[in-house]
Amino acid sequence: MDSSPTQDPIAELVTNYHELNSSIIEELHEEPSPLEFMRYVARNTPFVVRGAARDWPAMRLWTLDFLKSVMGDQEVNVAVTPYGNADAPTPYTPPNSSSPPTLVFAKPHYELQPFTHFLSRVTAQELAPSKGQEILYSQTQNDNLRSGEFAPLFSLNHVPTQIPWARIALCPKPARDLSSSWGSDYEDEPKLGPDAVNLWIGTSKSVTALHRDNYENVYVQVAGEKHFVLLPPWDAACVNEQPLRPARYRRRENDGKLELVLDKDIGEGDEPVPFATWDPDKPEVSQSAGPEGVCIAVNYW
Amino acid sequence: MDSSPTQDPIAELVTNYHELNSSIIEELHEEPSPLEFMRYVARNTPFVVRGAARDWPAMRLWTLDFLKSVMGDQEVNVAVTPYGNADAPTPYTPPNSSSPPTLVFAKPHYELQPFTHFLSRVTAQELAPSKGQEILYSQTQNDNLRSGEFAPLFSLNHVPTQIPWARIALCPKPARDLSSSWGSDYEDEPKLGPDAVNLWIGTSKSVTALHRDNYENVYVQVAGEKHFVLLPPWDAACVNEQPLRPARYRRRENDGKLELVLDKDIGEGDEPVPFATWDPDKPEVSQSAGPEGVCIAVNYW
Repeated sequence: MDSSPTQDPIAELVTNYHELNSSIIEELHEEPSPLEFMRYVARNTPFVVRGAARDWPAMRLWTLDFLKSVMGDQEVNVAVTPYGNADAPTPYTPPNSSSPPTLVFAKPHYELQPFTHFLSRVTAQELAPSKGQEILYSQTQNDNLRSGEFAPLFSLNHVPTQIPWARIALCPKPARDLSSSWGSDYEDEPKLGPDAVNLWIGTSKSVTALHRDNYENVYVQVAGEKHFVLLPPWDAACVNEQPLRPARYRRRENDGKLELVLDKDIGEGDEPVPFATWDPDKPEVSQSAGPEGVCIAVNYW
Repeated sequence: MDSSPTQDPIAELVTNYHELNSSIIEELHEEPSPLEFMRYVARNTPFVVRGAARDWPAMRLWTLDFLKSVMGDQEVNVAVTPYGNADAPTPYTPPNSSSPPTLVFAKPHYELQPFTHFLSRVTAQELAPSKGQEILYSQTQNDNLRSGEFAPLFSLNHVPTQIPWARIALCPKPARDLSSSWGSDYEDEPKLGPDAVNLWIGTSKSVTALHRDNYENVYVQVAGEKHFVLLPPWDAACVNEQPLRPARYRRRENDGKLELVLDKDIGEGDEPVPFATWDPDKPEVSQSAGPEGVCIAVNYW
């Protein structure tokens, strides 16, 4: 290990990688074949397909009024934070302490809200922001669109059940009943498609901290824009990953305002979360709202 | 860089890799599709296809007598070493020196030999070995079968010009005239197939030192057996790569015996060769001769 001719082999790897690879993201104008997709997977490189979802019914039908008509007052799980900082390194000072703040891993406060109520508040935070407003984000990643709270929307077949080129590339054993990517044929063998299909509803007030995911991610923007800053895997060595104590927002009992508490102080485990504490100039993922004041996206992984 | 929570991130990477990945090589019983092949490439994992070349004419026709009848006394470039140690770390002591030997990178002596002469000597080294015999290996990797000294053999179409599943997977732009994998249609667009097609003729006396190649390698055994020991790319950190001074074998003027000389002592460049100096228990690549006392293989990369 210590006999390498270079002083710092990881620094050399990172430098070489950036010298040899373009920082331009490839843009396709039609969907890739499974083999073309696998070439991107093999190189760990991202790509954008312009207009790939142009003909999905969701693109035309999913207005806010339509979403309200489908979901009504059904309760949905909403992440609430003071700054749009869900799952992000955040300075924390213990109560009644004069010591300098330490960085902790801040999880959002989750609460159930009637969908129409959530939608009114989330669009207001974009179109009529107020000082000190809470930032709401529907961001549960537990297959919420396919099998969770948004299943009534999924059942309309306005988005496909799977992405064929990704499924064929990543799932070695195609099933006979996966011939259609639309509709309920799919339900018999869900394990042969994506592990999760998630719906994201938020605004430009939410940002996502630099992080890594364990899945190939096919991310489809329905309304608004998403702005990703992507780092190659090697750069993991450069993001100053630190073990952060877990913390979460909760509502104070006396006035209902958000406060940040350490997990351990509310009886939860205190296992540190390894997390990047160096962020590039821009946050990794940000978004811009569409004309209706909301960002809507569907992702498959 | 120095703030990682682990003491030795590379050691942790290597340990995790081996804990999470099987050391069993997958065996296929039919050729993979381009997409299946790309999945192996994406994971950097090797595989064996049993019987894939069973129907190649070479498997049945390439006896030693046949090879002699095709190649006759045409001269071929032969690597000659004392121990089968071509391109291998080798101890070297300067002439008239009492200092301990140092490890150098020993290149073979290359010389042209009439093919029939080479073939007689190479089979004798396997079937009737003598003490102190030289070890011969036809191992030039400069497209020797397709466009070099063995082109007369290649023109018989006893092996395909390319491996379709590898070509389709690795060459993004298939050409219309690559529809056949056999015969001369291929010659118009050689750049769209493999970069090189090489023939290897040697015996069990040749071993190949632990090394790395820059190509995906489709290796086809025609006679004898090849025994590969493969390490995953991460293990590069564990093989004690060292900069070795380049050296080569040459024939001594007085008696024609092989002697090892530093490149710099014969007026060549002295740029060190970074090379693994730790070898697993067995050498990385060894081979066993077939009934005719020879190992014959074709590779595409």
